[in-house]
Amino acid sequence: MKISSIGEFGFINRIAPPFLQDLPEDVAGIGDDCAVIPWRENESLLITTDMLIENIHFIRKKISPFDLGYKSLAVNLSDIAAMGGTPESAFLSLGIPDNIDIEWLDEFYAGLNELAKQEQVYLLGGDTTKSPAHLVINITVTGKAESQFIKYRSTAKRGDIICTTGLTGDSGGGLKSLIEDKPLNDEVIYLIRQHNRPRAHISEGVWLSRQAGVNAMMDISDGIDSDLRRIMERSHCGAEINIDNLPISQQLRTASDRFNWNADEIAITGGEDYCLLVTVNPEQYNIISKKFEEDFNRKLQGIGFITNDETELRYFKNGKLIVIQGHGFDHFNNH
Amino acid sequence: MKISSIGEFGFINRIAPPFLQDLPEDVAGIGDDCAVIPWRENESLLITTDMLIENIHFIRKKISPFDLGYKSLAVNLSDIAAMGGTPESAFLSLGIPDNIDIEWLDEFYAGLNELAKQEQVYLLGGDTTKSPAHLVINITVTGKAESQFIKYRSTAKRGDIICTTGLTGDSGGGLKSLIEDKPLNDEVIYLIRQHNRPRAHISEGVWLSRQAGVNAMMDISDGIDSDLRRIMERSHCGAEINIDNLPISQQLRTASDRFNWNADEIAITGGEDYCLLVTVNPEQYNIISKKFEEDFNRKLQGIGFITNDETELRYFKNGKLIVIQGHGFDHFNNH
Repeated sequence: MKISSIGEFGFINRIAPPFLQDLPEDVAGIGDDCAVIPWRENESLLITTDMLIENIHFIRKKISPFDLGYKSLAVNLSDIAAMGGTPESAFLSLGIPDNIDIEWLDEFYAGLNELAKQEQVYLLGGDTTKSPAHLVINITVTGKAESQFIKYRSTAKRGDIICTTGLTGDSGGGLKSLIEDKPLNDEVIYLIRQHNRPRAHISEGVWLSRQAGVNAMMDISDGIDSDLRRIMERSHCGAEINIDNLPISQQLRTASDRFNWNADEIAITGGEDYCLLVTVNPEQYNIISKKFEEDFNRKLQGIGFITNDETELRYFKNGKLIVIQGHGFDHFNNH
Repeated sequence: MKISSIGEFGFINRIAPPFLQDLPEDVAGIGDDCAVIPWRENESLLITTDMLIENIHFIRKKISPFDLGYKSLAVNLSDIAAMGGTPESAFLSLGIPDNIDIEWLDEFYAGLNELAKQEQVYLLGGDTTKSPAHLVINITVTGKAESQFIKYRSTAKRGDIICTTGLTGDSGGGLKSLIEDKPLNDEVIYLIRQHNRPRAHISEGVWLSRQAGVNAMMDISDGIDSDLRRIMERSHCGAEINIDNLPISQQLRTASDRFNWNADEIAITGGEDYCLLVTVNPEQYNIISKKFEEDFNRKLQGIGFITNDETELRYFKNGKLIVIQGHGFDHFNNH
């Protein structure tokens, strides 16, 4: 049987059970953005790992080595942000094919180091090996969080307002620009930059994790549709998204008009925005979103609601139920 | 410039300096078997990561998926053992090509789980993605150790006796048997099993780390020659190996006679034995090796000495200086 017949998440659900048995108390294993391990009193260690492979996650001639180093670390920092943690250390394994030279790698490490310094993350180890054909990047990041404030995917509540901490679809628009080889005007340059140099929402994650009204949190890596289904699955709930409320940049709208793209679908299924998807108690939403705007100078954008209808994810536009094509990124089904 | 022109370790020395600056106190980064991060009082967290790529580290049709899962975890546990730690959790990233099916992966996970259960290691997370051509396995393992007992590569002392905690060359003989497609007699089956199902010397590592006379420790992954050079480089010393003292199994000797192999060279350069390479204060060697033999029912085999001659690694056989062909495993130079 091929993995494509059950998908990445079907496969994870198949292999995870033996590894979820008999876990020590307070340890959270497979199933969230990070594993959680008790550290000192009141504090937990967070650990996450991500593998990026050439021609699956990136096309080498479409991203500079500096940006690729930066982004490889950023996507892992985003997983720490998604639990409300602060990243601390990183471990990098590289599988290097013959057609990559040292100068290219110097730039890759410079990009990674730029973000590492910015976020005070220490690269403490790794592995370097030859690869027969494709560049392989695996990064593991550790972080810390106050145990009481850690946010999970599994704690969304019926009635919660679903919010994002940033614009959705820009990274997907950047990827489309690269794949379709769009001419580099201002919008396209902006979108490609969002795709190649994503920002992990670390300070937003720490801030939100400390608000009692924030119930569940994860980062948008595979796209709102795919990622929200993870929250639904883990929290045993459904969701409704109001497409009119999606925070879509003017640049993505302009590019979509010009290239005949569907900006809504890109925002929902594009993925790699690496902002946070948050569910907030509706009674506390107004206060939290007002304080968020004061601190971060932008909206904590409400885009929908958590519902009772388990496994049902519905989209509305102009008050009408609509059907979305595609369901976000699944490595084994979409390629 | 190609990496092959400076080798894996030349490359690591090139990229490491910016990441070794400004490390927090008591943190050990790039350069040893594991990174060391202060944990609770008197305790440290150890972290290591290893990437295994098809056709570089293993040939898929030459190892069962069960053994490959087992071995992938074992090589990481061995890095924790090398510092004197006890492994606790593991994180597995898999890049899976189209020609691997779910049943194969079930067996891979079963093998990994067998060793994980045996050593009470919890698989707490990972990443699963598609790979365009080759199977890629990256495992990160965390462990714990009492900070005062952690052993490093950098603390070998002149005059130390160099020891191994197990037989050397069996794994290399197994690899040669596989590559040369030797008929499966008892010796060959034994050697292949040592290659495909290595045992991490965890209890030996913990035990040795608590002996005051043990100065430096690492695991034999690339081969005595290559690994001892890492200790020499980090401890600013030289070494002499007495080849007559190498612990070589009867099976490897028999196979070497039959196939016209050089058992000494396999023991020195073959790699992947995953026993420990230890340097011991000569004044305490007799007591430590006697106690080791009582506890582990085999010798802590002395194979040579740490010398003053920085960067000089000399081999003696029957009292005569000899030259060894090959220098152990370097992914970028030997393939």
